[in-house]
Amino acid sequence: MGTMTIKVAINGYGTIGKRVADAVDAQDDMEIVGVTKTRPAFGCDLAVRKGYPIYCTFDDESRIKAFADAGYTCHGGLSDLLKVADIVVDCSPGKVGASNKATYVEAGVKWIFQGGEKHEMTGNSYTSSANHVQNLNVQGTRVVSCNTTGLSRTLVPLYEHCGELSVECTMIRRAADPGDSSKGPINAIKPVLKVPSHHGPDVMTVKPEIKINSMAVAVPTTIMHVHVITATLPEGHGLTTESILEMWASHPRLIIMNGAETGITTTAEVMEFSRDIGRKWGDLHEIFVWEDGVKLEGNTLYYFQAIHQESDVIPENVDAIRALMGVEEDWRVSVNKTDSAISKYNNL
Amino acid sequence: MGTMTIKVAINGYGTIGKRVADAVDAQDDMEIVGVTKTRPAFGCDLAVRKGYPIYCTFDDESRIKAFADAGYTCHGGLSDLLKVADIVVDCSPGKVGASNKATYVEAGVKWIFQGGEKHEMTGNSYTSSANHVQNLNVQGTRVVSCNTTGLSRTLVPLYEHCGELSVECTMIRRAADPGDSSKGPINAIKPVLKVPSHHGPDVMTVKPEIKINSMAVAVPTTIMHVHVITATLPEGHGLTTESILEMWASHPRLIIMNGAETGITTTAEVMEFSRDIGRKWGDLHEIFVWEDGVKLEGNTLYYFQAIHQESDVIPENVDAIRALMGVEEDWRVSVNKTDSAISKYNNL
Amino acid sequence: MGTMTIKVAINGYGTIGKRVADAVDAQDDMEIVGVTKTRPAFGCDLAVRKGYPIYCTFDDESRIKAFADAGYTCHGGLSDLLKVADIVVDCSPGKVGASNKATYVEAGVKWIFQGGEKHEMTGNSYTSSANHVQNLNVQGTRVVSCNTTGLSRTLVPLYEHCGELSVECTMIRRAADPGDSSKGPINAIKPVLKVPSHHGPDVMTVKPEIKINSMAVAVPTTIMHVHVITATLPEGHGLTTESILEMWASHPRLIIMNGAETGITTTAEVMEFSRDIGRKWGDLHEIFVWEDGVKLEGNTLYYFQAIHQESDVIPENVDAIRALMGVEEDWRVSVNKTDSAISKYNNL
Amino acid sequence: MGTMTIKVAINGYGTIGKRVADAVDAQDDMEIVGVTKTRPAFGCDLAVRKGYPIYCTFDDESRIKAFADAGYTCHGGLSDLLKVADIVVDCSPGKVGASNKATYVEAGVKWIFQGGEKHEMTGNSYTSSANHVQNLNVQGTRVVSCNTTGLSRTLVPLYEHCGELSVECTMIRRAADPGDSSKGPINAIKPVLKVPSHHGPDVMTVKPEIKINSMAVAVPTTIMHVHVITATLPEGHGLTTESILEMWASHPRLIIMNGAETGITTTAEVMEFSRDIGRKWGDLHEIFVWEDGVKLEGNTLYYFQAIHQESDVIPENVDAIRALMGVEEDWRVSVNKTDSAISKYNNL
Repeated sequence: MGTMTIKVAINGYGTIGKRVADAVDAQDDMEIVGVTKTRPAFGCDLAVRKGYPIYCTFDDESRIKAFADAGYTCHGGLSDLLKVADIVVDCSPGKVGASNKATYVEAGVKWIFQGGEKHEMTGNSYTSSANHVQNLNVQGTRVVSCNTTGLSRTLVPLYEHCGELSVECTMIRRAADPGDSSKGPINAIKPVLKVPSHHGPDVMTVKPEIKINSMAVAVPTTIMHVHVITATLPEGHGLTTESILEMWASHPRLIIMNGAETGITTTAEVMEFSRDIGRKWGDLHEIFVWEDGVKLEGNTLYYFQAIHQESDVIPENVDAIRALMGVEEDWRVSVNKTDSAISKYNNL
Repeated sequence: MGTMTIKVAINGYGTIGKRVADAVDAQDDMEIVGVTKTRPAFGCDLAVRKGYPIYCTFDDESRIKAFADAGYTCHGGLSDLLKVADIVVDCSPGKVGASNKATYVEAGVKWIFQGGEKHEMTGNSYTSSANHVQNLNVQGTRVVSCNTTGLSRTLVPLYEHCGELSVECTMIRRAADPGDSSKGPINAIKPVLKVPSHHGPDVMTVKPEIKINSMAVAVPTTIMHVHVITATLPEGHGLTTESILEMWASHPRLIIMNGAETGITTTAEVMEFSRDIGRKWGDLHEIFVWEDGVKLEGNTLYYFQAIHQESDVIPENVDAIRALMGVEEDWRVSVNKTDSAISKYNNL
Repeated sequence: MGTMTIKVAINGYGTIGKRVADAVDAQDDMEIVGVTKTRPAFGCDLAVRKGYPIYCTFDDESRIKAFADAGYTCHGGLSDLLKVADIVVDCSPGKVGASNKATYVEAGVKWIFQGGEKHEMTGNSYTSSANHVQNLNVQGTRVVSCNTTGLSRTLVPLYEHCGELSVECTMIRRAADPGDSSKGPINAIKPVLKVPSHHGPDVMTVKPEIKINSMAVAVPTTIMHVHVITATLPEGHGLTTESILEMWASHPRLIIMNGAETGITTTAEVMEFSRDIGRKWGDLHEIFVWEDGVKLEGNTLYYFQAIHQESDVIPENVDAIRALMGVEEDWRVSVNKTDSAISKYNNL
Repeated sequence: MGTMTIKVAINGYGTIGKRVADAVDAQDDMEIVGVTKTRPAFGCDLAVRKGYPIYCTFDDESRIKAFADAGYTCHGGLSDLLKVADIVVDCSPGKVGASNKATYVEAGVKWIFQGGEKHEMTGNSYTSSANHVQNLNVQGTRVVSCNTTGLSRTLVPLYEHCGELSVECTMIRRAADPGDSSKGPINAIKPVLKVPSHHGPDVMTVKPEIKINSMAVAVPTTIMHVHVITATLPEGHGLTTESILEMWASHPRLIIMNGAETGITTTAEVMEFSRDIGRKWGDLHEIFVWEDGVKLEGNTLYYFQAIHQESDVIPENVDAIRALMGVEEDWRVSVNKTDSAISKYNNL
């Protein structure tokens, strides 16, 4: 690529798309060549303020014209956008990926899907710390879901030390997004009756050697998921609670804090902390682990981690772009570059 | 005891006490000889309506007199009540048991504490299906907590079939009682950072052979707890998902329903079901298991169960009275007698 | 009617229908001749337990047969039920009333709709204390909504004393029913942007002389609505805060309690109180007014009242039956008869 | 003051203090000379990152030393800070103001308290649009509460047009702050039984001519308050719904949006909007009015407004500094200067 910047298209400028766009825009080796919207709506104002060219999700003249009618400059349909892009990050709602993939193949661009799509659709999956190298120069991949990304962050370093790992995870999920006022429950716990759930085993798409099952419940909160994890380490693991905490503290995109000492004892205080340190949207790209909630008893490790659903995958998308474009082979170098650039758009 | 009825005192006529009193009152082999209140308050009206003699929690003349001043007939202090009782069910708030125990010993009555007290305080613990026989004719015992009772209901029959059992349980707890408006969180998940939690291992006070650990979170709901359970069965267990469901269906105080077929997919609908079938206070003495949330994969059993915090232990207290008084050796006979009598005070 | 009992059909045996059925069943001058369900489902078990004959909502042979296939005795379609009824209480979901009305007219039965239907559809509306006499012997009427019923309970006696009344009401509504786990918001306040709302003015369908406007918001709770009311009394009203409280205390179906003295300071404690006094389903037919939240300043009266959405209209339906059948001209006599009979099915 | 910058001290660097500090820091005519903390805690890290000198809330050597022990540079006690300040913004928790006031008087600095203190304590109260001129060059004042500030924003321009105004307001309050996980209720509505409440009449401390009463309830949400307002305009007011909307649209710090058109129909979407436009902490300094929830019927105006509790008063503090220091007589000029500077620290 030389000193050329990577030309990135965002297909779907919504909750995930707007965050990926800003994270990409902050990097010095890539640029946003356009974002798509299905119709002229509030997101267009954001794109205008940021200076991102607007395209229509559809190659449909009347739909494209609707943008002009609403006062926005629309540069064309998705096909027009793909012509000026090296790679497209698909941030459209889940389950529409299959038809999009054919479009991307035809346009000759690389592509990245999100965790709402199935692994089988792309044949590749990605998290920065698990399998960056395997994704080098591939045509397309899938950045795994918020939950899988979160599990990778703490389990991959454990696995790499131990050589084997058997995990049970209970996922306590927020039932609705913070800006979604229509979904409940208001006062109930909702078990996900399909057991084991699909969430945990998805980790095996990025690190097949980790044995993992999960169960899930949805609860009346809008801010973060919490994972309750029990991991069985192999005999002779040589670890202690303290050495595991050190391992995690030196791993990127993990925050380890002591609940009793900081007063950060629930996801409410975690989110307040994120606002306090000036994060745009109040996002927390890192996985939050309570230091005093980690305990190794014999071969069994118990811990809690909190996941910010709409943001932990954002920097992973940036790294995945570098993997697919083959511009950086070392995942840690990419992660440092990504996070350093992102930190500049925060408020502090 | 011949045809004599067992004379039962309730020390603490609050959330648990009022329920135990009515359950005892419904039995033909026992009667309520009195209930205590610390001061004249709303609960006194309930006692009057039910015809339960009121006593003061304290042997203090001025406190006793306060009841008369408020228009209630108070028959004396706790000591006076114990003189006319064979057994006292202590339903006072947690952690005051130790001092009460000395009073009961001195009065020469048998006693039952609730799960808020520690096993060590009584030396015995009780659930109907786990260890009724071991509690026969003992001087005092502790009916275990709502969570331990719930775990016993499903794990004891499994253990009795398998001979060994290793269990991990995540407890998703309601953060406040339905009539408690002061506690939060309103929008957060709160992990119980002490890991593993004390809840699961408490099962071993009634069935020491079951190996169990637990972790817990509190969530913004007021109606039921949910347990997410992973149980490892021994090789050669000979069970299937279906045979486990049959085993549970034939076990007392378990309700097995299919969420997809009935529409009962969260704790909200479980509680509505309980009101619909006419239960007093909307209580559900049974543990609710979603049939379609049970899955045996190899030796690992996954399931969810919902626990009605303030009511699952109520019939257990009645059975415990029979154990301590030595009037019924067979736990299943006692359970049937208890539940049959209770069913008469429900609305349908 | 002589000593004949009134034959009552319930069309729609759901949240409201099951409650009306039991309230009717408790009266000695009326009987349930059948209840309808659209299909064999959980409600059928309830009907069987109560001994209510089951009919199908539709006159459709295959739908009727589905009940038998599911093991229930179905006595026919709606038309068959109407042949054996004097009056039908329509408890079907809102907005299907219009088509049902034609069916009732054709069958020659009297009919009662619920507040989900518009006043215009029946031409009559009903609450026991506002206009029982105007509903005597009419062919059909509408028992007004939970909110309108609640407003009538406190405003009608005020109006009758003052001769005129101008009212502003803010309704803080529960956003979902207790057994509904799908609706939100989990963490938001939702204003009803149509202002003024239709809720308050609906009072004028039963007492046209009361001038009233309302605004509404939905909030994340599942148990009760709260009305915040400001009423302007005419000059020379001669009332005091105390005399208004006395007026209300002597009015049927109002509960006046002091929050500070009883600890009943929110709707959570109100509902707990209702369970404590043994109400079936935990229902509170009465409107709850906080004594210490009532204040008359000059001509302006401020107060709060709490409304139990699914139950305050239940006894009103029973009274409306007597009005339409012309068996009791005095609303207070009917109310006393209704409530006395209902009290017997409660648990205390 | 010439070209000198105003030296501002922040006493209490918590939820309000940290926001006021950043807003002051963004202005070119003022600077932060120090912020106080009671003890070394998380807020100190924030201050260090921002470059604000840290002082101890107390003039106590051992407390001051504790900061150094924790690795922070502490420049002394409150007295030391006041020596280098022209004016102090007191952001300490409510009800400690009285003792602080004496300290400020003694130190010879000007002072600003927050709405948690009583008007009587300072003798002056302030909102930018209501009474900036009356606060010019006074020694101390009180920036009124979030609710009073919100009411002023919409009522003062109405009053100024109409000459008189009579208002009833129902306040639906968030029961806990977003970072507070201990307070409830989880599932209830809590009326503030003292009626009328103190909230509305507090408007009269800044604009005595507006007649206003209020009632309040707390509900289970953590994000915004909503006001439900009924205002009676005088005869001959000459206004229409549209002209009122225009009046508000041209008033500073009001956002008027159409719920149906934007999909912003609850406080959840309002807060999401605020994050989307890049506001630090997700704050919304403006009062949000739903265009389609405003309706003038005759002389009665109905509307809803949403209040971001911890942020609407922030820019008012900046304006109040200018008033007290006598550097800007025109409130609109100050408001524009304040808001323009603040907009630069937001993310877009």
